Amino acid sequence: MPTLPTHVDIFEEGPREGFQYEKGPIPTARKIELVDVLSDTGLKAVQVVSFVNPKRVPGMADAEAVVAGMTPRPGVSYRALWLNLAGFERARATGRLDLVGAFNIAASETFLKKNQNRSIAEQMADNGVMIERFKEVGAPVEKGGIMAAFGCNYEGDVPTTRVVELVGQLLAQASAHGVTLKYIMLADTMGWATPAAIKRTVGAVWDKHPGVGLSLHLHDTRGLGIANAYAGLEMGVTHYDAAVAGLGGCPFAGNAGAAGNVCTEDLVFMCEEMGIETGVDLERLIECARLAEDIVGHPLPGAVKIGGTLARLRAARAQASRA
Amino acid sequence: MPTLPTHVDIFEEGPREGFQYEKGPIPTARKIELVDVLSDTGLKAVQVVSFVNPKRVPGMADAEAVVAGMTPRPGVSYRALWLNLAGFERARATGRLDLVGAFNIAASETFLKKNQNRSIAEQMADNGVMIERFKEVGAPVEKGGIMAAFGCNYEGDVPTTRVVELVGQLLAQASAHGVTLKYIMLADTMGWATPAAIKRTVGAVWDKHPGVGLSLHLHDTRGLGIANAYAGLEMGVTHYDAAVAGLGGCPFAGNAGAAGNVCTEDLVFMCEEMGIETGVDLERLIECARLAEDIVGHPLPGAVKIGGTLARLRAARAQASRA
Repeated sequence: MPTLPTHVDIFEEGPREGFQYEKGPIPTARKIELVDVLSDTGLKAVQVVSFVNPKRVPGMADAEAVVAGMTPRPGVSYRALWLNLAGFERARATGRLDLVGAFNIAASETFLKKNQNRSIAEQMADNGVMIERFKEVGAPVEKGGIMAAFGCNYEGDVPTTRVVELVGQLLAQASAHGVTLKYIMLADTMGWATPAAIKRTVGAVWDKHPGVGLSLHLHDTRGLGIANAYAGLEMGVTHYDAAVAGLGGCPFAGNAGAAGNVCTEDLVFMCEEMGIETGVDLERLIECARLAEDIVGHPLPGAVKIGGTLARLRAARAQASRA
Repeated sequence: MPTLPTHVDIFEEGPREGFQYEKGPIPTARKIELVDVLSDTGLKAVQVVSFVNPKRVPGMADAEAVVAGMTPRPGVSYRALWLNLAGFERARATGRLDLVGAFNIAASETFLKKNQNRSIAEQMADNGVMIERFKEVGAPVEKGGIMAAFGCNYEGDVPTTRVVELVGQLLAQASAHGVTLKYIMLADTMGWATPAAIKRTVGAVWDKHPGVGLSLHLHDTRGLGIANAYAGLEMGVTHYDAAVAGLGGCPFAGNAGAAGNVCTEDLVFMCEEMGIETGVDLERLIECARLAEDIVGHPLPGAVKIGGTLARLRAARAQASRA
């Protein structure tokens, strides 16, 4: 039997993943409502919005208003996504976000071109500029991400050696700027990973770079998100991105390949049932998932919000046996 | 890295699981249509109907008509479910089914009472009578099942030792009747299993009964079905029940705790992508999943039917690079 971690950190990305993806206009007040209830679940980090081009991502045009409207709770780190320096400066200007320095690269040149209109070399150069700016304003430089680390709809399978090489490049770049990354995020951006690929890739990265922190960002496009997370747990990975209710893509809208991140409450359920502490109140999180469904106005993928928790069944039995 | 099996056998239960569960009346012709297209996917065994009390399960009142109407294809084993001798005799009377002798027990007395209105002792006694009848009519006695092997909504957690004990009882009962079971099915009837529990239970069974064949029947009530199947694969389990499109429960109908079996096409996708042969044509199976959705008239849970296969993306890339 493999030894599972005793504790994992979950980085909630539902508001950002979901509201940038949903087609219908969602009132700013309702976005704020979701952020505020998520603050009350024990989640330690919530990614609230992305600061990106509102012409390309209309759902994030009100990012500043969402951040201005939320009610920060002590102990919760409120984060944003940015893809360039302009986005970072917008995040900084709010004065209400944890400016944790993060930057990305992609294993696929074609994907990077489509997503950010830059080559890998251009992205590396821009990242260098961004890191210097993070340092300048006192934002801790913590996280380097590799998008499409398990495969790409445009470029196909990504060799494990390529991921190991990119991890090396990210670490070297950080080091050249005098910073040490807390972790590298391996993102299965387009849902190509399998549990075996997770194990192979994480194993190869740690063989070459022992002890480097890793986080997994797992899109559930082909239904393997939770199995991939389990494979990560067995390897000892302790940082996971996740989205409440599986926000970020609606499997019933015919958007092939656009499913959301692994569902936070299902991940919390799996972890807690296996004795892995998440610090999250699962019943409260399920309430958030139901609220998210109400806000977007259509069913979202998460299962535990329908099936219910086992803790609740156990408690009902215990109460019945006392009665 | 664990060694995964090179091949798995998938037992398709979609028609039986789905049509006994769906509320709306489904025309017999459409049930037959699904069975016939499933016959053409490479699946080697399809469970077509259950012979149960039509008053309790109205969706199976036309079981005989479905069996009479299907077009059997050579190489496919057509099966039925029964819970008692009367059901078995109805299956036998059709003259068109593979009468593979199977019988069940449950780890939970309360569940067995609710599902079959019998105690475990009564069930064991009835099973003995059924085994003798199987032998009498030349039905090979292959499979003993343990329902609620990972937990029960009525009785709570099931200790691993209890499952090991029940496996021993099933093997002993078979042996007392002069037959050797090909495998024991461990059923997560109510969605209590986690990947860790699968590994613990399978490991404990094989410690006590080395080499006994095992199959897994995994309901996806809390979203862990596919992760549980992966845990089974890592343990070396090579027989899985599954339901096309995840038929057998609609997560959007508000039926808490009633989700279907692990989705066949998602399971096939995971296996094939990890180099585990299933013998199933995934694209054809996805067509079946879409047909199943059309027949039941509402979305079904499977993900690959939305996300699409990677084989298709790889083929498109190969073609583009040749052009």
